[in-house]
Amino acid sequence: MTNIERLGSLLVEIDADWAVLTGADSVCFATGHVVPIEIGQSPFAGGPTVAFVGRDGSAGVVCPNTDGGQGGDHEEIAYVGFANQVTDQVANYRAAVTEMVGRLGLSGSIAIEASSFPHALSDLLPDSRQTADAPLARLRAVKNDAEVALMTNAAQVAAAGQKEARRLSVPGACEMENFGHVRSAMEVMANARCPLAGEYITGVDGTSRLGTPISDRTLENGDPVLCDLAPRVAGYWGDSCSAFIVGGEPVDAYRRMYDAAKSTLDLAIAELRPGLRACDFDATLRAHMKGMGFEYPHHSGHGIGTSVHEFPRLVPDETTAFEENMFIMVEPGSYAPGLGGLRCEFMLRVTATGAEVVAPFEMTCA
Amino acid sequence: MTNIERLGSLLVEIDADWAVLTGADSVCFATGHVVPIEIGQSPFAGGPTVAFVGRDGSAGVVCPNTDGGQGGDHEEIAYVGFANQVTDQVANYRAAVTEMVGRLGLSGSIAIEASSFPHALSDLLPDSRQTADAPLARLRAVKNDAEVALMTNAAQVAAAGQKEARRLSVPGACEMENFGHVRSAMEVMANARCPLAGEYITGVDGTSRLGTPISDRTLENGDPVLCDLAPRVAGYWGDSCSAFIVGGEPVDAYRRMYDAAKSTLDLAIAELRPGLRACDFDATLRAHMKGMGFEYPHHSGHGIGTSVHEFPRLVPDETTAFEENMFIMVEPGSYAPGLGGLRCEFMLRVTATGAEVVAPFEMTCA
Repeated sequence: MTNIERLGSLLVEIDADWAVLTGADSVCFATGHVVPIEIGQSPFAGGPTVAFVGRDGSAGVVCPNTDGGQGGDHEEIAYVGFANQVTDQVANYRAAVTEMVGRLGLSGSIAIEASSFPHALSDLLPDSRQTADAPLARLRAVKNDAEVALMTNAAQVAAAGQKEARRLSVPGACEMENFGHVRSAMEVMANARCPLAGEYITGVDGTSRLGTPISDRTLENGDPVLCDLAPRVAGYWGDSCSAFIVGGEPVDAYRRMYDAAKSTLDLAIAELRPGLRACDFDATLRAHMKGMGFEYPHHSGHGIGTSVHEFPRLVPDETTAFEENMFIMVEPGSYAPGLGGLRCEFMLRVTATGAEVVAPFEMTCA
Repeated sequence: MTNIERLGSLLVEIDADWAVLTGADSVCFATGHVVPIEIGQSPFAGGPTVAFVGRDGSAGVVCPNTDGGQGGDHEEIAYVGFANQVTDQVANYRAAVTEMVGRLGLSGSIAIEASSFPHALSDLLPDSRQTADAPLARLRAVKNDAEVALMTNAAQVAAAGQKEARRLSVPGACEMENFGHVRSAMEVMANARCPLAGEYITGVDGTSRLGTPISDRTLENGDPVLCDLAPRVAGYWGDSCSAFIVGGEPVDAYRRMYDAAKSTLDLAIAELRPGLRACDFDATLRAHMKGMGFEYPHHSGHGIGTSVHEFPRLVPDETTAFEENMFIMVEPGSYAPGLGGLRCEFMLRVTATGAEVVAPFEMTCA
């Protein structure tokens, strides 16, 4: 079933006639159209790229002429954003949306996204509107076959980055430079530039706290390394985290902390299955970690897809039950002053009866 | 004069009481608050980060808790975006904006940005509103002293990238890998991750067309290289483009094409001054290029600041006159099937009487 068809069914459920999607993630989910995001909103855009989807499977995309022509099974209007003359991108955007509304015969009630539906469109579309953020998040959480392949590909690119990070983490290397080279290895594998979230932090002090920025620090023998890599490939995000010791000889205290996180991740792979509630899964993982003498001050993980963090999140009060073909990041970790920090993160796909690791990579601390 | 003060004066001019800014570029211009943009809108945001500026110099920023605490001379509310529990980011965003409206005493009429002001805010702010995209673009075009320093720093980072690109462009190197390493060199210099626009294209075929994506192509002796680097450093963009031949021995036809672009750039440095109109400057550059036997199918250049392309653009119908402390990219080039393409781009600052190159780098083809 295509995501346009799935959205059509959702519209019937929530009693709306059309979805008007303006988040880059939702546009990609619905139509496969990839919005460039690496420099924020394009200076040539008159507003966020819009995807229109109707109950009957009609669909259209309005985007600037810098991003058009990606193909796909929908109408497209690529308005003048970049031109060799003075041009009013907002006016062009509005005109293109008006034309698309006419072409699709859009009328009735619309479902929109509260955080991205822009003022520029507010007088051009029907007044009967509801925000559909929550049901849309639920729909996006379960991937169709095409998305399973895209997620797998993105996870493989992340895994290639992890391999390169391990190879480059040697005494004398520069943290910031390594991060750039790891990114480069992923982009070579993807054969495309990839927006990238994550971090590559080295040393006891930096890894022992969350949120340390990457710096020009020089790696030393015995340094803990925390490498979290999340590249977007063809509109879908991979994610991953490894932790290890430069030179491969962890002190006992680090090894105990590592074993706690790694065995919690192993437990997650064994326990994740359809029907299990996110809160119960989260509790199981935290309890295991605590039984090993450690805890983590963050979520146990999160959904992932056309956004790097999405529904459902693995937190104590998320009661949603897992379904087949949800993609779930699991990332137990621990952060200890004077010792360093670590996190073990794989992407898991919920299967019909359990879970499998998508694109595994080396997960050892030595 | 701070940009908050300059915005206050603009509000008087356009007869609005408050500016409510939602573009990442405008937020940074107004307050110095840098919105992370590298992965598009944050999955932890309930809407675009907002800057409020009043006529009297009151100012506030509402941002997710992942980006707060940057300091600056304004109120800040960092709402819960990331949490270890189920949370409604849109509701948190709306509550924070409501609190900020109360704290600042915002009332009267507001100036907004059409392409980014979101539905989520439309019922929370005064109905008396105007879109202020055009006057805001004009205000942002002229930089104050603090911005001159930030622009210079960003241009220096770009120049460091250009130097590294020239060093790495040797036979046998991989195009995609070089691009990553050049990015890395810029991030090492900035000691921070930098959002990056631009391209690094090699070979006759790829450089002879605009819009060729970066690939895993292997560089060969005699290849033309076109390297356009635009990093954002501390919220402000650098930009730059160089072109040269791997091995340093251009054929005569390439050298003639290069001399045309380079001498057009030299002319630009000599001609740019306050009072000159963008259209006349554009015409002068195109005429010179044509006199040398070449032409370019794009703008002659563009303004730059907290957005990588901004007002004024150097196109035939832009009648705006330059003013001191405008930062203008000038980028004549030529693209010839069978021969390759090139572009020579410096950042120029309009001075009281002329123009100067900001952070020059090697501009030769051999």
